[in-house]
Amino acid sequence: MVINMYKKIIEPRVSETDGVGHINNTTLPVWLEAARNPIFKLFTPDDSFDNWRMIILHTSIDYVSQIYFGTNVDVYTWVKRIGNSSLELDEEIHQSGTICALSNLK
Amino acid sequence: MVINMYKKIIEPRVSETDGVGHINNTTLPVWLEAARNPIFKLFTPDDSFDNWRMIILHTSIDYVSQIYFGTNVDVYTWVKRIGNSSLELDEEIHQSGTICALSNLK
Amino acid sequence: MVINMYKKIIEPRVSETDGVGHINNTTLPVWLEAARNPIFKLFTPDDSFDNWRMIILHTSIDYVSQIYFGTNVDVYTWVKRIGNSSLELDEEIHQSGTICALSNLK
Amino acid sequence: MVINMYKKIIEPRVSETDGVGHINNTTLPVWLEAARNPIFKLFTPDDSFDNWRMIILHTSIDYVSQIYFGTNVDVYTWVKRIGNSSLELDEEIHQSGTICALSNLK
Repeated sequence: MVINMYKKIIEPRVSETDGVGHINNTTLPVWLEAARNPIFKLFTPDDSFDNWRMIILHTSIDYVSQIYFGTNVDVYTWVKRIGNSSLELDEEIHQSGTICALSNLK
Repeated sequence: MVINMYKKIIEPRVSETDGVGHINNTTLPVWLEAARNPIFKLFTPDDSFDNWRMIILHTSIDYVSQIYFGTNVDVYTWVKRIGNSSLELDEEIHQSGTICALSNLK
Repeated sequence: MVINMYKKIIEPRVSETDGVGHINNTTLPVWLEAARNPIFKLFTPDDSFDNWRMIILHTSIDYVSQIYFGTNVDVYTWVKRIGNSSLELDEEIHQSGTICALSNLK
Repeated sequence: MVINMYKKIIEPRVSETDGVGHINNTTLPVWLEAARNPIFKLFTPDDSFDNWRMIILHTSIDYVSQIYFGTNVDVYTWVKRIGNSSLELDEEIHQSGTICALSNLK
């Protein structure tokens, strides 16, 4: 049995911070989607939008710890459950060895 | 007893669509935050980031129906629950009389 | 003779600020594009991406004055020049009666 | 004499495409800024926004060729000119061996 966990390293951008001085909460869904690129490729090998097969029904994010500009983050993605026509993913964002966010996607 | 519901009308932007042809899922958190501006103002009347008081702990979004470029959306925001030091909000995004997304924020 | 100038009022979003405390420079192209929606509609009346007719060749922006969260901005767009198969636009962003940015698009 | 050219590899994100099917024009300034991170670090070694020293006065972008989702891009950044209190940068975005955009920043 094989469990695939994908890891995507992301360098935070100035444009992804906000006036409070941290990474803005709306940046996290963007990073979580970026880390799902290998999953998209499994279902749409030619990366063609005309053949896109995935529709998101539900997402949740727990914001555990602030994320800062200046240090890379690691986004981990793995399949939690596979049904006949659906998929459930869990994702985590880590920075400097601290878990910063947990996300679930159906 | 008064229940405050805020309504923000948003005109979708080309940059908020994606290759699949709809509004990208990561745009919705941006709109939901935009619709919370009056809530921010209640807690930070001078809109100063130095005095910013709100930390997001959890968000969830149910994606009910696709959203398209070319027609305005209405984002409704209301306070679901007020605790001693916390707040829970519900938000909805509507387009053309159809509910497109429900969101909860703690 | 009629000269059409379009005006779009935009409410800045928290996600559009950055850690320096102002509106991030990368937000301005997003607003400038948002203000071009009526121009898109002239050339693609059904707002359909399949019939999209405009390709951007060149943009420039002069950043004249900082833009802040908390106050609406006005984006003005007008046609500078129409050729046989091309269009040149000028755009300006104002906040609180001050011109904050000038842009040219070919 | 040493000329520093920085290279940043960026993996396009679904959220950075638009309904026309390519990378949206407003994504390019975001990538160009992301590629300037090493320049920021030269002037603000601790990545602190309180000590931020750079103000953008002018940017221009020539859009030479469409950029697609599914293939990494390379962003090259180099200093064109250094004055007493100012800096001029040139940047290029390449994909699949083709130059897609040229940018100048003052």
